[in-house]
Amino acid sequence: MELQFLGTGAGMPSKERNTSALALKLLEERGTIWLFDCGEATQHQILHTTIRPRKVEKIFITHLHGDHIFGLPGFLSSRSFLGGKDTLTIYGPKGLKEWINSSFEVSKTHLTYPIEFVEVEEGVIFEDDQFIVTAKLLEHVIPCYGYRIEQKPLLGELLIDKVNELGVPKGPMLGKLKNGEDVTLENGTTILSKDVTAPPKKGFIVTILGDTKYCESAKILCNEADIIVHEATFDHATGHLAASYGHSTNVEAAKIARESKGKNLILNHISARFLPHDLETLLNDAKEIFPNVSIANDFTLYQWKNNQLTTE
Amino acid sequence: MELQFLGTGAGMPSKERNTSALALKLLEERGTIWLFDCGEATQHQILHTTIRPRKVEKIFITHLHGDHIFGLPGFLSSRSFLGGKDTLTIYGPKGLKEWINSSFEVSKTHLTYPIEFVEVEEGVIFEDDQFIVTAKLLEHVIPCYGYRIEQKPLLGELLIDKVNELGVPKGPMLGKLKNGEDVTLENGTTILSKDVTAPPKKGFIVTILGDTKYCESAKILCNEADIIVHEATFDHATGHLAASYGHSTNVEAAKIARESKGKNLILNHISARFLPHDLETLLNDAKEIFPNVSIANDFTLYQWKNNQLTTE
Ligand SMILES: [Zn+2]
Ligand SMILES: [Zn+2]
Repeated sequence: MELQFLGTGAGMPSKERNTSALALKLLEERGTIWLFDCGEATQHQILHTTIRPRKVEKIFITHLHGDHIFGLPGFLSSRSFLGGKDTLTIYGPKGLKEWINSSFEVSKTHLTYPIEFVEVEEGVIFEDDQFIVTAKLLEHVIPCYGYRIEQKPLLGELLIDKVNELGVPKGPMLGKLKNGEDVTLENGTTILSKDVTAPPKKGFIVTILGDTKYCESAKILCNEADIIVHEATFDHATGHLAASYGHSTNVEAAKIARESKGKNLILNHISARFLPHDLETLLNDAKEIFPNVSIANDFTLYQWKNNQLTTE
Repeated sequence: MELQFLGTGAGMPSKERNTSALALKLLEERGTIWLFDCGEATQHQILHTTIRPRKVEKIFITHLHGDHIFGLPGFLSSRSFLGGKDTLTIYGPKGLKEWINSSFEVSKTHLTYPIEFVEVEEGVIFEDDQFIVTAKLLEHVIPCYGYRIEQKPLLGELLIDKVNELGVPKGPMLGKLKNGEDVTLENGTTILSKDVTAPPKKGFIVTILGDTKYCESAKILCNEADIIVHEATFDHATGHLAASYGHSTNVEAAKIARESKGKNLILNHISARFLPHDLETLLNDAKEIFPNVSIANDFTLYQWKNNQLTTE
């Protein structure tokens, strides 16, 4: 799993930071990519990455402010131009579907693939044998959802010594055992998968929050998450304004991470008024409360491997 | 007058060319800028120019394909964020107003300035004491307008020798004479403006066409224009496809310029499939028919001065 930030700015694009978009790259896990928010020019940012639009399987929209959705019509059209054929599912608040459809209608856009719209409400919004995604309302000036993505436990690897010992022949039986199925040998012996595989491994938990002030819902969504992506529109100095605009400070984001027992915190939705030197302070102030914190820039690519978050 | 290309691509953004947008900079003439089309990320392109969104007084939309309009909601919102107060007038085909309003509604965008929508039909769509703008339907797969912008004749300069000779005193009378008003001196003599000013100078004519196949309307709009901006989505080799997609070739654009007795031709709406070496051929083939031709790139800035078109 990798996490690549495509837009880490707030409200308006600047030369340094585009409006919101974030790619959860699940290429190893399922061969696809999930996008979170799609500000204007997300497709332009993607041109500078290895991401292929047709690999995007799902788009989750946190809320309907322009800096989080105005890139959708263009991205969806270009995915079509670029040969996308697979269904794309879009999760978002009420009203999104109608606007996207009106954008297609006015521009006479006809896609080469189907879109499935899911109007998000609180609770589990997606589940399959690999992942479960939960949505919860945050506290912003308009309805805004945070998303918790939990990977289900992974089957433990096959213990080669044990299968050899029990006389399982090379071939399809090994695959079945590895995938959790029990098998019966030619001699009538039944081999239980759990006896020849390592115990299941815990999957990862990533929580991606939209715009929000410091709130209890955020803590619930972030509970023991491996990675928390939290906005930091304001710094401590201007923090008295944050809540009234429905936003958080760096320090509040760090508190959420600490109080929810998160493992890693990534700050995004950074205002263009912060200069490089302010960002240092922004980071250091957050570190005092929660040490495993970093600030995402446009194109920052985080890797999740062996329960560790790294970036180049 | 200057003409700055902000997006010269066709259909989809590429690393080299953004989707359509073009700024007619009338800073000397009226202190404002007129935009023609507004593809996604036009506001991002503007960040790399000296253009200030609040100076944009009018936006003319040729047609409603996504690559010509998907940057509007973001541009209009940012113009507001950036302190725009003056009315902005948007000229475009039927349906544009409703889509822009639905974009504002879904995103809860409230602008700091009024927008005036003008639903374009063929004929004169704007006229004041400086300019007259005419729209005409071209031939594309959906309704698409071309715009002819004519500057009205400019008052000739005041002839200093003549006013001195006639005894006009320094002061406000000189200004009146310069502006075409006649004045009466203290001694009762009437001085006619036309007697003490040079003859009026011809204004410029710029024709900006949207997507179109080779057509008669284009020729009419381009008649004796100083600058013609014409699409060249196809080259001569792939030209058999052009008309069926509602587009033109470089050679057809050159023919329009020649047949309409235009002075300068600028080609835009260039497909991303053309490599630098193809562009050379594209240009040379057009030159054989109409020598004063160039291909616009993103950010190319043309200057119109002393009836000459130059670029750095
Ligand atoms: Zn935002
Ligand atoms: Zn076009």
